[in-house]
Amino acid sequence: MVTTFYIPTRIIFGAGAFRQLGSQAAATGKRALLVTGKSSARASGLLDRALAVLGESGLETTVFDRVEPNPRSTTVDAGARLVREKDLDLVIALGGGSVMDGAKGIVIAAAGGRSIWHYVTTGEEAEGRAPGLITVPTVAASGSESNCGAVITNWETHEKCTIGRNCAYPAVSIVDPELTLTLPLKPTLQGGVDIFCHLLEPYITAGHPAPLTDGIIETALKLVATFLPRISADLNDIESRTQLSWASTIACSDFISLGGGDGSLTLHGIEHAVSGFYDVAHGDGLAALLPAWMDYTCPVRRQRFASLGDRVFGQADGISAVRNWLGKIGMGLKLRDLGVDESRIPAMAECAVSTAPWLKKHPLPLEAGDIAGLYRQSW
Amino acid sequence: MVTTFYIPTRIIFGAGAFRQLGSQAAATGKRALLVTGKSSARASGLLDRALAVLGESGLETTVFDRVEPNPRSTTVDAGARLVREKDLDLVIALGGGSVMDGAKGIVIAAAGGRSIWHYVTTGEEAEGRAPGLITVPTVAASGSESNCGAVITNWETHEKCTIGRNCAYPAVSIVDPELTLTLPLKPTLQGGVDIFCHLLEPYITAGHPAPLTDGIIETALKLVATFLPRISADLNDIESRTQLSWASTIACSDFISLGGGDGSLTLHGIEHAVSGFYDVAHGDGLAALLPAWMDYTCPVRRQRFASLGDRVFGQADGISAVRNWLGKIGMGLKLRDLGVDESRIPAMAECAVSTAPWLKKHPLPLEAGDIAGLYRQSW
Repeated sequence: MVTTFYIPTRIIFGAGAFRQLGSQAAATGKRALLVTGKSSARASGLLDRALAVLGESGLETTVFDRVEPNPRSTTVDAGARLVREKDLDLVIALGGGSVMDGAKGIVIAAAGGRSIWHYVTTGEEAEGRAPGLITVPTVAASGSESNCGAVITNWETHEKCTIGRNCAYPAVSIVDPELTLTLPLKPTLQGGVDIFCHLLEPYITAGHPAPLTDGIIETALKLVATFLPRISADLNDIESRTQLSWASTIACSDFISLGGGDGSLTLHGIEHAVSGFYDVAHGDGLAALLPAWMDYTCPVRRQRFASLGDRVFGQADGISAVRNWLGKIGMGLKLRDLGVDESRIPAMAECAVSTAPWLKKHPLPLEAGDIAGLYRQSW
Repeated sequence: MVTTFYIPTRIIFGAGAFRQLGSQAAATGKRALLVTGKSSARASGLLDRALAVLGESGLETTVFDRVEPNPRSTTVDAGARLVREKDLDLVIALGGGSVMDGAKGIVIAAAGGRSIWHYVTTGEEAEGRAPGLITVPTVAASGSESNCGAVITNWETHEKCTIGRNCAYPAVSIVDPELTLTLPLKPTLQGGVDIFCHLLEPYITAGHPAPLTDGIIETALKLVATFLPRISADLNDIESRTQLSWASTIACSDFISLGGGDGSLTLHGIEHAVSGFYDVAHGDGLAALLPAWMDYTCPVRRQRFASLGDRVFGQADGISAVRNWLGKIGMGLKLRDLGVDESRIPAMAECAVSTAPWLKKHPLPLEAGDIAGLYRQSW
């Protein structure tokens, strides 16, 4: 099997890395769109710090602070219009996964000149000149800082879809765990579960052992399993925040398909339909669905769950270990707790099938009926 | 601590990856210098396969088959002259570490226009337009395919020095373990020891545990420790060759300084003086020096050696485990076996100090007298 490892992003990692934003931005462009969410970067003072440092480095910066959780295609299009109208050559994402994904969508749509949904649905390349991209994650979660993919939601159709293009690889990602210190407990836990699933899903679904990939994933899973509870106990524990950020940065990227594994995220595919319909936090949706996904997959992957138990948790039963861990960190959730209406399960299952074609790669067939069963078990 | 992970190379890995050489070369340039050694690629038929595939893909290719083991600065300069005279836009390295390093030197010198030794000794940037670089390793050893560094030897002064420049990052590295199947036992073992030391040196010298880096290095060390003996038993074992190639590709790169570790290779620094004086195989020199280096370092890194023993070899004593492993694979060597004259030890020690300034970073001082002591113990 031939695999490709390709992460052209310069990943600058560590407490204090944020100080390099100005010099890195000046090396990448002149006129920047600073993409962020509606409130947290402003409230924490981080937006002002970023603007100050960018100004000192000679950049003209336009703020676009409209990216919502589960970023909408219409928001992305508005950002892309700004880039084109103002002839901006750099997009800087300052925020969590939604902000980074929104910024990637803006880069793609600005390069191509049409609505982002056109590129999502047609697979067409965005041929024009793309602005450079710098991501500055403030949350350890999506791992968007080290890949070229984004998840964009069409709120009219409830479709939450992934898109990836070469122009959406960040030129630079500044991963400073200090920026995650202000994140409250709940979104910290949601992010941790997201990272855990990015690692667990390809690990479990892999059809054969791949010693290098397995070792890297087990190492990163142990980081999340160990350090997320420590952060729960002390949100200011910078060492634990640092380890969680590392796990985030390598989790959703080519790091975990070295030497095997296709990295298909089938639990993610099933969850996207839920948060496409209900705007629930992605990490909550994953936590609610994970036990049923494990039970469903176990009959064809017993050996992988045994390895998980043994090598990550030091226990014989990997599934129980994960369930117990979720409970211990307060993420033993059910879909009904998240406001999901049982009557919409069939529609969500149909949506999952249509928006996540990679569900076909799951080692046990995952048709609409199977997915509805998983939703019911998780309800 | 802020660290950077940056490998802009597209690493195409796996048995059969060689078939992509034509399309990747055509995407990178038009007129190629194919850099290789004096005999093995020709003898194995690989050179002819490469020329055929490059021709079919429309490239004009000039062969430069003069790179010797421990590539000389004069050879590099001759290659760079060819690139400039023929206005070539692509350099393809087909061979082991010496060929890849020679090709990188050619890229740097061709870009800058002066002798490679000028850039080695001054640290000056090579400002001109550099040809693209594709590496195709035929040996699992140096890991040159995933970094921007090269080791070049000035045969007049016996100096073996490292140089790194951004233009020397391969655009593409095609790592096909099938190409290593024809490598005889001895160079396979030498390469394996080189990989092992690339991993072991930063692991041991690290001043504090770094969970992610440690986990990745331990995983890769286990690959070498496990699969090198299996290759010894069956040189055609493609699965074991594949695992060794993976270990090679990640070992001497930013993969092993994720989240900590400066990756200073102090044993390598001491060995370079030996192979700069005697043209011994680098892996043999490392194998001869490794036990003394471990003994010397142990007093300040007992905990790291204990972790090595426990996590890699499943034994309490890491140093004994490594010694035993070297013996088991037939690499329990002494410098006198390699033709080193004891009377030249002081001169080699002085050379090590002057060519490897990073020896100062070793956790115990490594002055010329200490290094001479290591040579004597290894003689």
